[in-house]
Formats: sequence, C-alpha cells, structure tokens
Amino acid sequence: MPNLSSSQTTFTVDCLQFCNWSRSIFEEMRSGDVDVVHATIAYHENFRKTVDRIVAWDRRFADHDDLIIKASSIADIERAKANGRTAILFGLQNPSPIEADLGLVSILYDLGIRFMQITYNNQSLLGAGWQEPEDSGLTKMGQLVVREMNRLGMVIDLSHAGERTVLDTIAASERPVAVTHANPRWWRETARNVSDKIAAGLAETDGMLGLSLYPHHLAGSSDCKLDNFCTMVARLAEQIGPQRIGIGSDLCQGHEDSIISWMRDGRWTFESAANPNGPAALPRQPSWFQSNADFPGIRAGLRRVGFSEPEADGIMGENWMRFLRQAFANGRPQ
Amino acid sequence: MPNLSSSQTTFTVDCLQFCNWSRSIFEEMRSGDVDVVHATIAYHENFRKTVDRIVAWDRRFADHDDLIIKASSIADIERAKANGRTAILFGLQNPSPIEADLGLVSILYDLGIRFMQITYNNQSLLGAGWQEPEDSGLTKMGQLVVREMNRLGMVIDLSHAGERTVLDTIAASERPVAVTHANPRWWRETARNVSDKIAAGLAETDGMLGLSLYPHHLAGSSDCKLDNFCTMVARLAEQIGPQRIGIGSDLCQGHEDSIISWMRDGRWTFESAANPNGPAALPRQPSWFQSNADFPGIRAGLRRVGFSEPEADGIMGENWMRFLRQAFANGRPQ
Repeated sequence: MPNLSSSQTTFTVDCLQFCNWSRSIFEEMRSGDVDVVHATIAYHENFRKTVDRIVAWDRRFADHDDLIIKASSIADIERAKANGRTAILFGLQNPSPIEADLGLVSILYDLGIRFMQITYNNQSLLGAGWQEPEDSGLTKMGQLVVREMNRLGMVIDLSHAGERTVLDTIAASERPVAVTHANPRWWRETARNVSDKIAAGLAETDGMLGLSLYPHHLAGSSDCKLDNFCTMVARLAEQIGPQRIGIGSDLCQGHEDSIISWMRDGRWTFESAANPNGPAALPRQPSWFQSNADFPGIRAGLRRVGFSEPEADGIMGENWMRFLRQAFANGRPQ
Repeated sequence: MPNLSSSQTTFTVDCLQFCNWSRSIFEEMRSGDVDVVHATIAYHENFRKTVDRIVAWDRRFADHDDLIIKASSIADIERAKANGRTAILFGLQNPSPIEADLGLVSILYDLGIRFMQITYNNQSLLGAGWQEPEDSGLTKMGQLVVREMNRLGMVIDLSHAGERTVLDTIAASERPVAVTHANPRWWRETARNVSDKIAAGLAETDGMLGLSLYPHHLAGSSDCKLDNFCTMVARLAEQIGPQRIGIGSDLCQGHEDSIISWMRDGRWTFESAANPNGPAALPRQPSWFQSNADFPGIRAGLRRVGFSEPEADGIMGENWMRFLRQAFANGRPQ
C-alpha cells in the first residue's frame, strides 16, 4: 500500500475513536495520514471524573507533542496539519458529565469538549437510547441542552440514541446534527444503525453520517470485505448524497475485553447488560482496518467502486471539515 | 463628588473583591468608573464546588451583560472598557480547588481563573499562611505549582501567605508576583500586612502591592481617614516606587456576618478560629470607601497628597494593567 502522507493535501478525519491511547496508536495516526480524530473522553463518568480524563489527555499532549495536539477550533486543526500532527477533538458519548446541571455544558465547552451524545444506549436525562424498550423522545432538559449546544457550537451526536429521540433532536436543533459512528440499517440490521428515516432526516438538514468500522455494525461482521463496505457507501451516496458521508470508525484499539463492560454496563447495572451482540468481548477488526494506518486503503477502495477523487476526499474527511467549520462557528457573545 | 466616568480614559482596577454580588454592586462599579475587578471565586472549595461558583458567575454575566463581562485576557478587558462594561477577572484565595492534582491548574486556567493564592491564612499543600505558628516555606508541590502558573500566565497572589513562604515564592517564580490586597506593616501592625522584606522583594522583582481598604488592614481601622491612607501611599511610593502600587480593596460588601466564619474557619475547624481581629463580624467600612462608587474620591485624595496625574492614574489601575499585560502573556504551546 502506498504511503500517501506526503501527497495528501485534503483532510482525513475519523470522527469517533475510543482507543487505549498510546504512542504507537498516535504513530499509526501519522502513518495513516489521519489529520483529525474525534476522541471519546467519557462514557458514564460524572463531571469530576471527566475532568480527570481531560487531565490525563493533557499529559498525553505534553508527552507526544511531536504527534498530536489538542484541538478545539478549525484554526487548531489547520495548524496541526501544517505541522504534521494529528488534531484530537474531545467528545462525550453520554451526557452524564453534565449531571443535571445545564450550566456544565459551557464549562465542558471551555475545557475543549466539542461533541456530546444525547444519550448512550439507555435513557439519559436528555433522551432515550436505542436499547430502551420505549423511546419518549427528547426531554424538557434535552430541549434546553440542544439549545445550549447550538449556542456554543458543540456538535450534537445521535449515534446511540433511539429513533424518536434522533428525529426529535433533528427537529429541535437549529444547527445540523451528526451521527458520528453508525451505518445504514439496510446494510446491517441492528437498531444501532440508522434507519431510512434517520438517514433522510440527516440529509434534509445538512447533517452528517460517519460510517462505522466496528464489526457489530458491518455486514458480515469481522469478515466484512472492503469492497462490500465501499459498495454500501456507493449506494448510501445515492440515498443521501456523497457530501453527507464521512468516517467515524469507532476504533476501539488496544483495550482489554473488560472495557466492553464499562461501555455497556457503566454503573447502572450490577449484572452484564442484555447483550444483543454475543459475549462481551472485543470483536476482531476486519483485516483491512486494524488501525489508523489503514485509512489510505479505504480511500483506494472508494475510488475502485467509482467515487471520483473529490468525492472520495469528501468521504475521507473533507465533508467532516465542511460540517465542522459550520458547527464550530461560535455564536455566543464573547 | 464629580462623576469622572466620561472623562477617565485610563484604567481603574480593583485587584480584589469578594462581595455578595448583585446588580446594584455591578451598577456601583459602573458609577465608580471601575474597569476591572478581580473577583474571588473560591476560598475553601474543592474543585467541583469551584465549578459551581463559575457556573453561578456565568448566569450573572448573562443576566447583567449591560454592566459586566467575563474577562480572561487583556483583549477582553479592553473590549469591556470600550463598551462601558466592567471586566471581571476570576481568582482563588486558596489552592484548595486544585486539590492535590497539579493537572487541575491548567483546567482552572481554561475555565478563566487568572489569580491563585498560594495559601489562605493556614498551611496549604503549597505553603504556609500568615496565621501558622511555623512557616516552612514553599513546599515541593508549591514549587511545581509556581512553575505551572508561570507557564500558563496565572498570577501568583501571596496576600495571605507567611513571610517565609512569600519570600520563597518570589525567589521561585520566574514571573513577577503580586500581593493583591494588603498594606505595609509599618502603617498598621499585623502579620497580614506586608513586612519591609516582602515590600522590598516585590519591588526588586517587578511585583505589585494592591492596597487594601478593609478596616482590619487600615491604621485606625474603620475610622481611618482618606488623607491618612493617601499619606501612607505617598510614603510607600518612596519605599517601593509608585509604579509598584495598585488597589486591591478587599471589598466585602453585602454579606451577612456569617461569611466571616466561612472565610476564616472553612471546614478545617469545628470551632471559630482564633481571631486576632475581634469578634467575627464584618467591620464597618471607612466613610470614604463604602462601595465601588467611591473610587473617584481615592484618586482625588492621591492628587491632594502630591501625586502627579500619571502617578495617581498608575496607582488607580494603570500599574495593574502594565503588570497584567505581562502576566497574561501566555507562554504555553497551543
């Protein structure tokens, strides 16, 4: 596989990863020419523990400043690329860090958080997750948090929300929203992937769908072939337009299997949660996406199924950059 | 007293207040033409409770945006003055908000904290307060926090520290430090006021001394006359130079007397702390400094004892502005 690092002038963006962060993973980001990674900072943490996660990242930025920088703006992202570093954007997969305090949204924004999910799998104070038997949609507090995130320029992420909550949030938000990491449900049947209604809602509101490379979201799971994935992307592009599509790989590299229990069970249950995807072990990644170093192969795969170079560049990151430029435009009085 | 608001082009700065904040106090800031106030955010709060204080300030900024703005940079201060608002800078009187975590210094910086005292009266993790029987100086963690505050551009405030801790910190800091609110000990004998050694240490290192208007720090206490205060300033100017002098009024307006217990006793004692200044009640302010509206009178008093207009402007705020321009210059890699 050719090393495209030197020739790639467009941005490569992965809009969701939660790895067991290490220098070797950051080195893979560089070898894969990945310019921007949206990194998950917290799942079920409260505010105080989320701050500990940020403090840990501050040490990573200090220890690996030749590879990564903390980014909270487009200017940061552009400076990272100009200096051959990967820009790390902070995101929360659950609103637990804001506890029940609307005022903590801007506090977390000031600490660099640029993405927050309305909920993670279950009911949150804001809305219902895809695993709840009933989805009563966006709550009263959810409406206010959506407004606050719109004001600040924090991206609303709906990846793990239930369908009604997703559609309510799309309707409530004055800014485009994102599903940072999921695939079309018609390709792999699971309520975790997006329905046609959700896909249409995103397309109609300039939203974005980041495609997941996590086996449970792939047709054929761990054995999914790159060409199958890219053929799905081509069909999805006909459905919602190539400009609405990006990557949110959901890469979960380097963890022990026990991390699955933290993500799924948090502290809300004493038993392992009902598990629609089999035993709580990290699934084997497909052969063509083992790490950040494999992004150039996906770009090549997209070209093979007929995407033009600008279309492939868009899906690999330029579409996210266009979305983020608008999303990060900060409307609050300074 | 003439209203100088329209004619005052130089900055008026009060480098320490802890009021029971209200709209009327903010209105008094405007009528006194006070451009910048360093407001105490926390005394004995841990990190989490400090964040609650910041959230409460966020609501004040939203509710009174015609009078005050949050400031974390010189640009913010200049914009506030240009728009007829008072710039509020955040500070901590104690390092309790950083708990035992060096990483929380930059987190609090990111939340807008621009001043932190090494300690408040007692021993902290960083150094000894003026009420400790023994002062062993700046601790190991204290050395590291000083370095981190230097890196970030957070002002080191030594107002409530013991003499050895003050002198150690002046020696350890690569940037000038401040005693934001105290008077010379030769004028009012109390270990809370600065010794000649401390005054000399500040003068030799481009530090600043903000003069307190809190009765326990004044010769004659509540009955101190303005001319007495201004005559002290004239003598102090001969001692350390007029350019090292500012105001840090320690204004503590609108509180119930019980606030004294919180400030002095925190949660470190079950009984009221030994009290060198009499009963735990808020002292009566001198007649000539009841509120922010009285700043123009101090400027006039300084002129009467012989300060030139530029010297008086310096003491009323321009000296703090020169210090803050240097202090806020941020050396950390972005």
